[in-house]
Amino acid sequence: MKKAVVLLSGGLDSATALAIARDQGYQCYALSIDYGQRHRSELVAARKVAQSLGAVAHQIIKLDLTAFGGSALTDQTIEVPTSGAETDIPVTYVPARNTIMLSLALAWAETLQCQDIFVGVNAVDYSGYPDCRPEYIQAFEKMANLATKAGIEGKKLTIHTPLMHLSKKEIIKAGLALGVDFSLTVSCYQADEMGHACGVCDSCRIRKAGFAAAGKCDPVSYLA
Amino acid sequence: MKKAVVLLSGGLDSATALAIARDQGYQCYALSIDYGQRHRSELVAARKVAQSLGAVAHQIIKLDLTAFGGSALTDQTIEVPTSGAETDIPVTYVPARNTIMLSLALAWAETLQCQDIFVGVNAVDYSGYPDCRPEYIQAFEKMANLATKAGIEGKKLTIHTPLMHLSKKEIIKAGLALGVDFSLTVSCYQADEMGHACGVCDSCRIRKAGFAAAGKCDPVSYLA
Repeated sequence: MKKAVVLLSGGLDSATALAIARDQGYQCYALSIDYGQRHRSELVAARKVAQSLGAVAHQIIKLDLTAFGGSALTDQTIEVPTSGAETDIPVTYVPARNTIMLSLALAWAETLQCQDIFVGVNAVDYSGYPDCRPEYIQAFEKMANLATKAGIEGKKLTIHTPLMHLSKKEIIKAGLALGVDFSLTVSCYQADEMGHACGVCDSCRIRKAGFAAAGKCDPVSYLA
Repeated sequence: MKKAVVLLSGGLDSATALAIARDQGYQCYALSIDYGQRHRSELVAARKVAQSLGAVAHQIIKLDLTAFGGSALTDQTIEVPTSGAETDIPVTYVPARNTIMLSLALAWAETLQCQDIFVGVNAVDYSGYPDCRPEYIQAFEKMANLATKAGIEGKKLTIHTPLMHLSKKEIIKAGLALGVDFSLTVSCYQADEMGHACGVCDSCRIRKAGFAAAGKCDPVSYLA
């Protein structure tokens, strides 16, 4: 059976990416990064999602990005925005986060002798994040194939981004069709320890609008 | 004054790369990764080297790569080779190590608003490592410029590899000319806690041969 490393944050998108990888016949190795994020409960969510979607293994790698700061998600002195008025790159953007996460996925893929990595990046709702764009993913894939033993031996590594061009509504519908239990996921940037969502941050607003557009009920409980 | 992030392992090459960056007029932010390496004393060495070469800051980021295994440097069940007979990619190769380290350097560079990263990779003595080749570095640089806020804003990030085409002899001569105190560095893959080098692993052999070729005395003490 072919293997895939799947980056799993504990949110709605990566849960759907995991379900898609499994549906495509991959044995899934889920990888989460404890990077000092404000919303700690997403790691608890990741654990539950990995289990419920039958991942054969799940690793949570600890990497303290708070030392660098520079993002509302890792720097407690920067507030999580709730206005939705941003037109620039959001302050919730974590410097080089996807590059770091994909690099760790690459390391695990190489030791597993696996040529497939799935990541739930999306260019529609997160168009402000430079590392969610297709041209970035293509450049990462090219670099990865030059970086590794497998690449040198001609075994091509592929970065799969099944959600790249889907709207939030389409992601939710795809996830539901594949049996994703969205009640286990945490999307909120400032969820409390129990995983309760604030309902007002950018991530909550996008999620709520997605469920509304899909005509489905969001099983997550919101504080606001 | 222009800033640079410099990857600093505590070995001979990265110490020289740091000295070169400083010599080129950069204010240096040294970055070391505690990735669970066997040779822990190289982190102590990195601290001393950063200080002695006037780095304005030095961060040691903890990231446990032993969870992935797959290298003699992070997996205690794989022996460090001493034969020098390898023609293939060495078992001391750590999967995706340079990609992970450069990604972390990229994150710090982005928060520092700095466009320059120095890394002491070398294609001559470590030709067996895929992630020490010029084509790999070029691909990483291209990816990095698509990954970041700065890249989008047109501020080009450069990955400097001043040692890429130098022999070990030339690196040692360059380091000495710039005042690097090589007694502070640890190159050995299995150095003990005090930083004593084994004298027989691949890294020790290459270092010893380099000092011999340069006609200089290696200030490090060898057990064998």
